[in-house]
Amino acid sequence: MTQILRIALMGTGRMAHVYGPKINAHPGLQLEVIYNPRIASAEKAAAQYGGRPMDDLDQVLADPAVDAVIIATPTDTHVDYIERVAQAGKPIYCEKPLDQTLERVSRAMAALDANPVPFMLGFNRRFDPENNALREAVRKGEIGRVNMLMSWSREPAPPPIEYVRASGGYFVDATIHDIDLLCWIAGERPVEVHASGSCMFDPQIGAEGDFDMTMTTLKMPSGALVHINNSRSCSYGFDQRLEAFGDKGMLQTVNQRDDNLVRWGADRTEAREPLKHFFLERYDQSFYNALDEFHAAVTEGRAPSATAEDGRAALAISLACARSVKEGRAIAPDYGES
Amino acid sequence: MTQILRIALMGTGRMAHVYGPKINAHPGLQLEVIYNPRIASAEKAAAQYGGRPMDDLDQVLADPAVDAVIIATPTDTHVDYIERVAQAGKPIYCEKPLDQTLERVSRAMAALDANPVPFMLGFNRRFDPENNALREAVRKGEIGRVNMLMSWSREPAPPPIEYVRASGGYFVDATIHDIDLLCWIAGERPVEVHASGSCMFDPQIGAEGDFDMTMTTLKMPSGALVHINNSRSCSYGFDQRLEAFGDKGMLQTVNQRDDNLVRWGADRTEAREPLKHFFLERYDQSFYNALDEFHAAVTEGRAPSATAEDGRAALAISLACARSVKEGRAIAPDYGES
Amino acid sequence: MTQILRIALMGTGRMAHVYGPKINAHPGLQLEVIYNPRIASAEKAAAQYGGRPMDDLDQVLADPAVDAVIIATPTDTHVDYIERVAQAGKPIYCEKPLDQTLERVSRAMAALDANPVPFMLGFNRRFDPENNALREAVRKGEIGRVNMLMSWSREPAPPPIEYVRASGGYFVDATIHDIDLLCWIAGERPVEVHASGSCMFDPQIGAEGDFDMTMTTLKMPSGALVHINNSRSCSYGFDQRLEAFGDKGMLQTVNQRDDNLVRWGADRTEAREPLKHFFLERYDQSFYNALDEFHAAVTEGRAPSATAEDGRAALAISLACARSVKEGRAIAPDYGES
Amino acid sequence: MTQILRIALMGTGRMAHVYGPKINAHPGLQLEVIYNPRIASAEKAAAQYGGRPMDDLDQVLADPAVDAVIIATPTDTHVDYIERVAQAGKPIYCEKPLDQTLERVSRAMAALDANPVPFMLGFNRRFDPENNALREAVRKGEIGRVNMLMSWSREPAPPPIEYVRASGGYFVDATIHDIDLLCWIAGERPVEVHASGSCMFDPQIGAEGDFDMTMTTLKMPSGALVHINNSRSCSYGFDQRLEAFGDKGMLQTVNQRDDNLVRWGADRTEAREPLKHFFLERYDQSFYNALDEFHAAVTEGRAPSATAEDGRAALAISLACARSVKEGRAIAPDYGES
Repeated sequence: MTQILRIALMGTGRMAHVYGPKINAHPGLQLEVIYNPRIASAEKAAAQYGGRPMDDLDQVLADPAVDAVIIATPTDTHVDYIERVAQAGKPIYCEKPLDQTLERVSRAMAALDANPVPFMLGFNRRFDPENNALREAVRKGEIGRVNMLMSWSREPAPPPIEYVRASGGYFVDATIHDIDLLCWIAGERPVEVHASGSCMFDPQIGAEGDFDMTMTTLKMPSGALVHINNSRSCSYGFDQRLEAFGDKGMLQTVNQRDDNLVRWGADRTEAREPLKHFFLERYDQSFYNALDEFHAAVTEGRAPSATAEDGRAALAISLACARSVKEGRAIAPDYGES
Repeated sequence: MTQILRIALMGTGRMAHVYGPKINAHPGLQLEVIYNPRIASAEKAAAQYGGRPMDDLDQVLADPAVDAVIIATPTDTHVDYIERVAQAGKPIYCEKPLDQTLERVSRAMAALDANPVPFMLGFNRRFDPENNALREAVRKGEIGRVNMLMSWSREPAPPPIEYVRASGGYFVDATIHDIDLLCWIAGERPVEVHASGSCMFDPQIGAEGDFDMTMTTLKMPSGALVHINNSRSCSYGFDQRLEAFGDKGMLQTVNQRDDNLVRWGADRTEAREPLKHFFLERYDQSFYNALDEFHAAVTEGRAPSATAEDGRAALAISLACARSVKEGRAIAPDYGES
Repeated sequence: MTQILRIALMGTGRMAHVYGPKINAHPGLQLEVIYNPRIASAEKAAAQYGGRPMDDLDQVLADPAVDAVIIATPTDTHVDYIERVAQAGKPIYCEKPLDQTLERVSRAMAALDANPVPFMLGFNRRFDPENNALREAVRKGEIGRVNMLMSWSREPAPPPIEYVRASGGYFVDATIHDIDLLCWIAGERPVEVHASGSCMFDPQIGAEGDFDMTMTTLKMPSGALVHINNSRSCSYGFDQRLEAFGDKGMLQTVNQRDDNLVRWGADRTEAREPLKHFFLERYDQSFYNALDEFHAAVTEGRAPSATAEDGRAALAISLACARSVKEGRAIAPDYGES
Repeated sequence: MTQILRIALMGTGRMAHVYGPKINAHPGLQLEVIYNPRIASAEKAAAQYGGRPMDDLDQVLADPAVDAVIIATPTDTHVDYIERVAQAGKPIYCEKPLDQTLERVSRAMAALDANPVPFMLGFNRRFDPENNALREAVRKGEIGRVNMLMSWSREPAPPPIEYVRASGGYFVDATIHDIDLLCWIAGERPVEVHASGSCMFDPQIGAEGDFDMTMTTLKMPSGALVHINNSRSCSYGFDQRLEAFGDKGMLQTVNQRDDNLVRWGADRTEAREPLKHFFLERYDQSFYNALDEFHAAVTEGRAPSATAEDGRAALAISLACARSVKEGRAIAPDYGES
């Protein structure tokens, strides 16, 4: 029999709307509470996904019917919630990133050290079946030693400028996904990063001092080289690819579509269906699988596979990228004392 | 709220093992009873999938906790069960084919006329997402008028000779799938069929007077031509493809794999992962979707989309194919008076 | 040093315009004479490609500066020219088909028996590099025993109705190419053929009693089955594909394009460049290679690889296809006494 | 009528063996002289390709039967030969790179300024049909503004260590090709470069202070970002790809093979033929096309399309890459005063 985890979902924004339906679809998860300090928002979301709307954090954390907490609130509130939930002794699944500053991330890690509840960071792309298949093939030695890794992440259209302003910058907001994924595949973290950035799509983004396209190089302790390619705009959809090059071979993931029909016509020969629109569509399964890992880890009493330490490292690398562009030189990420 | 249909699953053989897990996975279906005249078999399957084991057909059909029946017994028993279940007034999902003779199929259809319960025939390939996407594109006019249709179905390895003996012949056992699928896509049924057959893989099959590879041509009333390509053996896996050619374009489905990694190595450049092994793997989703259609039709009070009449037509065409090879000429299928 | 063959090119029609430039491009061929009974036509072509215009056949055949003859005149004159050139003792390259009737083909073969000059029939598709690569792979045993062969030949647009009227029917005009190619790959000729035809694109073709789309099945002595798929119209270009299925694997040729760029855009993701327009573009290299084989065979004193006997067999099979549609039954081709 | 250029080929090493057969294959080029200061080497090459063997440079340059010179000698002799041939007033085709130092390149450019003979640098990859098709599509605006360019060049196996020692380093020897190609496609040259390098395949290369794998980022004046990916080893052959990403779409070239058959078998499903082995096979056509451009430019009295200035710029960028790795920072290439 599947053991049921009753969930309090913190937040009612964009990411909460991703997790709500996934919680309901998972046989081992039950949406017990939806929390928002503004009760009207909680009530609206509860009407949509079920669960009890609540606006009092103390009551939520004291509620014996809450087995675990999913934090899907704005990024700058993650650390505060982690501290509170950890003190309450409940398992935590926290949407990425942990935070935009290493200082606050250290606070969250200290809280988790003091109150060692199961903690998982929502690096959902690790749980995508194709990304996983590539990593498994690498791990099994199919391409021998890893020499180069490459990741493309080009988004269909720039986000609203308000989103950009609050994002912590393109490296911290977006490249962090590729960084985590590639370090996880490589099994190591860079000793040095080099990054370049431009703003060619949306001048508003440049006016904020941010970039809308970047190229990043990571150098790994083994000597392996890593390339990351990001764009806030992509006319043909959400371009998501990986390439792993080793001394015995090479592996590539391919872009995904709603169907795989090959279409031939007068003005498009051997054409494929458009790509999955954006991350909600492309990583739909990976969000589910991430919750499944959380459920499995908590019910089996083991640590979830994407840790706070992973989150700190990815943030440190992202911040080093931003600094590399600014200073025009290679930067060694600050991994702290650990 | 999803309306629950409580199911009596008839049979404990290969196809029952396909449907058992799918019934359990479907939120609207509940496996209430597993029936086999030998109670030990029913008990064994019930231990695996749940449900009450029963060996008395009258009791099953009289049981008020049974809302609908799935017939997954040997082909030559389908018609008898249909008659009994129809008389009991319960909705029926029957694994294909209806039967191997037109006479007995007519008996089943007469029973369904006399007792008009919801009836669905398990032509599961219609419910495969890729096959469906192709049909949808055809229906939307993406390729204009349909001029040619083609289907490949090459199985990884010949079945046991006992299976072949009881199968009714390759056309009735296997080609019938392609026939139903292509008629469904075309929206019409052939006025004439031509077929050729050989036995080049397994001489035992030839010794039974059957074929292990065939090519079939159907001529449609519109003039459209249809090609079907069947083999009982295929070294590279379960080759399942469709091609639809119209005056405005062409559509192709592609073979499916466990993952879509592109693999490059010293002795295999730009290779894809092996194909899904066989029909259980390749059509896993389509069996689920077929049950979903049955559930939806019964609970919505409408007729399921694959009918007994479809089954009769596909059988008539299959038998015409067999006769065409034997007589070396084009044969007009016998569609009865309808 | 390359030995030069001085060529008399018979004819100034469509096929002569294919061969003229190829003769000029080949380092071992020299366009010595262009012959047409109407001197104005010969003069016009000679102005374009070089060579002396001539209208007197006796003079051409007596000319010591003519080493070999390429017959590219209308089909119904091929046999007469073969008889004359063979009597004159000159090597012959004759555009396919030999003729549209078996009787006249027998006359040509008798003339060649009586005057055994080197003779090559222009089945140019055998000399296409990709078709050749497929055959080589088959010959090397890459797919083991050949079980099935398939050929697609869909032309971009119907020819003028005058062309259709003079063509001898679709099977004799077009399918004959696929027939020759597949028999050559299989290394055997069918014992039985089945064909179906429709007219769905150009009603004028139907009014002539001809078809604009056909499907043909050949049954080989080994048991191998062969499918041929022809259409006089194809919205996406000149669709030319082969598939060879054996007990150890399968081989496919792919359609060809001017370039192989993969193009991604808002309304066409992962699209390929349009196909080569029609046979002049697609088989450009194969016409050259066919002349190269002729040159090599004549200068090396060996028999060219596509023989009059091959031409007779392909015609016999094509005529059997036409008869199969008419009589609605399988037909055994008439291979004569040989 | 094609105008004939009589060629003196300088050198009898690896590259001379590339150009010898291409000169012979080109209808407008005639191999008049093969020069090597050691007459035995010249005689050996002349026996293979034709032409008069000569060992006296003055005599070669004074020979009225020499219309133009192709320099295919060791890199460190290019500049001396350019000075001598320019003074003699003969058109020059010089294999890349011009030299390994900017100082000596400036000397060559000064000599060409003083004696403005037609000069072409052998950046052959510009003349590859697929690379050209990509550039043409970019130039026609198919992808709108260019935002990112990427190039992969992974060689099948490391060269002999003697070659590495004399090569000027990996960036100057190999990356220079990608640099020239991408600048030529972009229509601009970088204001800044970032590079990273490792040695993971052949420790001897590392012992020489060189790299066997590198990643390079170029930042263009427009803001466009460029990635180059080089490896001295590649298990699956000579991996040569380009990607151009613009605001209206994306273009990719694909790897090339001897044939394009798709091969399916028990242990390789949907596999393609191995890649063209190395640069001689992959760029066979491009070497021919480069000579064709040289012939056309000289006979038409126009400047060839790949200039000494292009060579200087590519070298300046390559040297900046090497310095970037050494100094761990972004470097602005030194384009001189021009």
